[in-house]
Amino acid sequence: MSISWEDRLANRMGGVTSSAIRELFKPAQQPGMISFAGGMPARDLLPTDAVREASIRVLNERGPQALQYGSTEGYLPLRRWILEHLTDEGIRLTEDNIIITTGAQQGLDLTGKLLLNPGDKVIVESPTFLGALQAFNAYQAVYESIPMDENGMQVELLYDSLAKNPGFIYTVPNFQNPSGVTLSLRRRHTLVEMASRYDVPILEDDPYDQLRFEGERLPTLLSLDAAQSESDNGQPYQGNVIRVGSFSKILGPGLRLGWAIGAAPLIRRMVQAKQGVDLHTSLYVQMVVHEVVEEGFFEQHIARLRAAYRERRNIILEAMTMYFPPDVRWTMPQGGLFIWVILPPLLDSDTLLDEALHNKVAFVPGAPFYADRVGSHSLRLSFSYPPMDQIELGIQRLGEVLMQAGEMSTSVVEE
Amino acid sequence: MSISWEDRLANRMGGVTSSAIRELFKPAQQPGMISFAGGMPARDLLPTDAVREASIRVLNERGPQALQYGSTEGYLPLRRWILEHLTDEGIRLTEDNIIITTGAQQGLDLTGKLLLNPGDKVIVESPTFLGALQAFNAYQAVYESIPMDENGMQVELLYDSLAKNPGFIYTVPNFQNPSGVTLSLRRRHTLVEMASRYDVPILEDDPYDQLRFEGERLPTLLSLDAAQSESDNGQPYQGNVIRVGSFSKILGPGLRLGWAIGAAPLIRRMVQAKQGVDLHTSLYVQMVVHEVVEEGFFEQHIARLRAAYRERRNIILEAMTMYFPPDVRWTMPQGGLFIWVILPPLLDSDTLLDEALHNKVAFVPGAPFYADRVGSHSLRLSFSYPPMDQIELGIQRLGEVLMQAGEMSTSVVEE
Repeated sequence: MSISWEDRLANRMGGVTSSAIRELFKPAQQPGMISFAGGMPARDLLPTDAVREASIRVLNERGPQALQYGSTEGYLPLRRWILEHLTDEGIRLTEDNIIITTGAQQGLDLTGKLLLNPGDKVIVESPTFLGALQAFNAYQAVYESIPMDENGMQVELLYDSLAKNPGFIYTVPNFQNPSGVTLSLRRRHTLVEMASRYDVPILEDDPYDQLRFEGERLPTLLSLDAAQSESDNGQPYQGNVIRVGSFSKILGPGLRLGWAIGAAPLIRRMVQAKQGVDLHTSLYVQMVVHEVVEEGFFEQHIARLRAAYRERRNIILEAMTMYFPPDVRWTMPQGGLFIWVILPPLLDSDTLLDEALHNKVAFVPGAPFYADRVGSHSLRLSFSYPPMDQIELGIQRLGEVLMQAGEMSTSVVEE
Repeated sequence: MSISWEDRLANRMGGVTSSAIRELFKPAQQPGMISFAGGMPARDLLPTDAVREASIRVLNERGPQALQYGSTEGYLPLRRWILEHLTDEGIRLTEDNIIITTGAQQGLDLTGKLLLNPGDKVIVESPTFLGALQAFNAYQAVYESIPMDENGMQVELLYDSLAKNPGFIYTVPNFQNPSGVTLSLRRRHTLVEMASRYDVPILEDDPYDQLRFEGERLPTLLSLDAAQSESDNGQPYQGNVIRVGSFSKILGPGLRLGWAIGAAPLIRRMVQAKQGVDLHTSLYVQMVVHEVVEEGFFEQHIARLRAAYRERRNIILEAMTMYFPPDVRWTMPQGGLFIWVILPPLLDSDTLLDEALHNKVAFVPGAPFYADRVGSHSLRLSFSYPPMDQIELGIQRLGEVLMQAGEMSTSVVEE
């Protein structure tokens, strides 16, 4: 007798949900399609030569180490390199404050695993990163959605939610996925102060930190919290911010390499949890990435990425101005990979997607990025992946779809 | 004000526990120590040259693919290779029956995530694999321990536990970690029949499958279940066995590459769960491993591993016969990496470990391998890692410790 898996699984773990974005990868890969859907690095910016040379050196010089079991905390030289190069200066951080993860996604999952009980609230931006909702849904989180504007999360609206004893606040402060907006310095200060006052952890998801095209880099929430909460006792960071990052947008998402930084007692529990989850992240990959980033390659490569993505952003913004109807609005990202588009109230982006795919252009509809599934009058464009010389054509196609849909909705109203 | 992480974490996720084995890695790495503790592959059997050549080919030929996002299910050519080479013949399995995982450990974790609610029972062998307890503890499992003998789990003792509606049965049927024993063919048939009758899933953890030194390979629980449960309707496998495996003992644990095979509806839910957990396993590593195993290397390498570990096992068993006191007993593994040692009732392996480390030899005490923490009169020896020419010396040292402890316990009794 064969078991009824559907019945059995239906009774457990109602929280596991599939990602609408990943389902979208399939139509977006049809021939002739120009896809602004996935937030994937440009093909020609992936450092295949550097990874190959690093792989050869690692296997020639320390092969048996790379293929053997490693520590759950992660490869120590890589952890030290990250602390030195990818955190703000002046925070007291030691190797006990960092764990290597299987992508930043695992940092989100482990945070949920440690800090959420079923029914716990998580404060999120509205819209927020879909992958975070997937991670927290597995722990049966419920959400408090805080609206955003061009300066990020409207932190002055946080008080009610903070009073509800949430598990943590989740934010992507730089060039947010999906909106592309950046949390202002003033709001960063306010957010850190409020979270500290209410004793609520902040999960700072910062995968696009290095991809700023223009303007001044803002301090991380981690560093602002360190500055406000640390006395002069010389102790390493003990505050309530957990900052996760990733090599996905810097080197390549296929490596699956990220990290989480926070107070030592929290990181220690993350290490314990990770032992049961996957023991450790591929040591071979960790050693290869450490070999890649050492000795100056990292700085050159980041400069190359910034220039390339800046140019792509300029092209797409110019094309949007040219081809989109006047009642469509959008954000102006200073970095990252994403632009958020607000449609007139009568246009629904789910319906629009069918028309767009038919016209050989893809995007991600806005609704899945809202914890409460509102927001069907919005969509996400990623300018990182399509070949540079096709961006204008893709936006022209999408503009046609928007124009036609706008005319139809107007005529419906006039009837 | 800094948050009190200890207090906050104490209130959540009581189930996350640290691994006594991994804590042991540190003393076991002291200079001069001969360690039978970790179940690590021998240094000189790790295929660094093959991995290097495969890495070069992957990055030269399909570099941008290897560094880009991949599918959560895993790299299709690798999934097909595993189905063709690492499962029994005659089971109907398609690519919908397999997911690539970040080591077999993740297969255990995802099974717990999907099938366990807090307080659910898991039937385990006694002793059982410590890493599995860690994975299931995170879901607040409770355990039903079934004793083992030289033919594996005593399945005739399963009835009471099966009647308690357990989440699943967990077993390592081949060369079990920690005991080294193999589940007999007769018991395999009985186990599969009983699980099917009671509609209870079996999690078949089979990382040592390829490492048989002698005797005939026994059919997997998956294939026995397929044979009993499938009608002739030509459908792919739909039964209640989930079989997880790993490249850790075949190629190298530092790669963190495993898989889970089972009914399509279950695998589909594992894919959804894995999206939130780590999105996918390193595509670079998946493509490199596929490149390594193709074209005959795999068969040669397995033959090399079997010969080398057989020789090590012969050396350690001979030394144990020579140096261990007559009242100490042990198992005779036909494969894998482990031997289980039963001490006389007056000897405690935790106490013994201090003496042993002092005498520059390491092992893992037995208690952590028991879900109910009984079994302090046992210990695990792994013969895979220490250099071959040190195995006899290590066993001689351990024999001295056992002799002295035995004399002391006898003299205490005589007083």
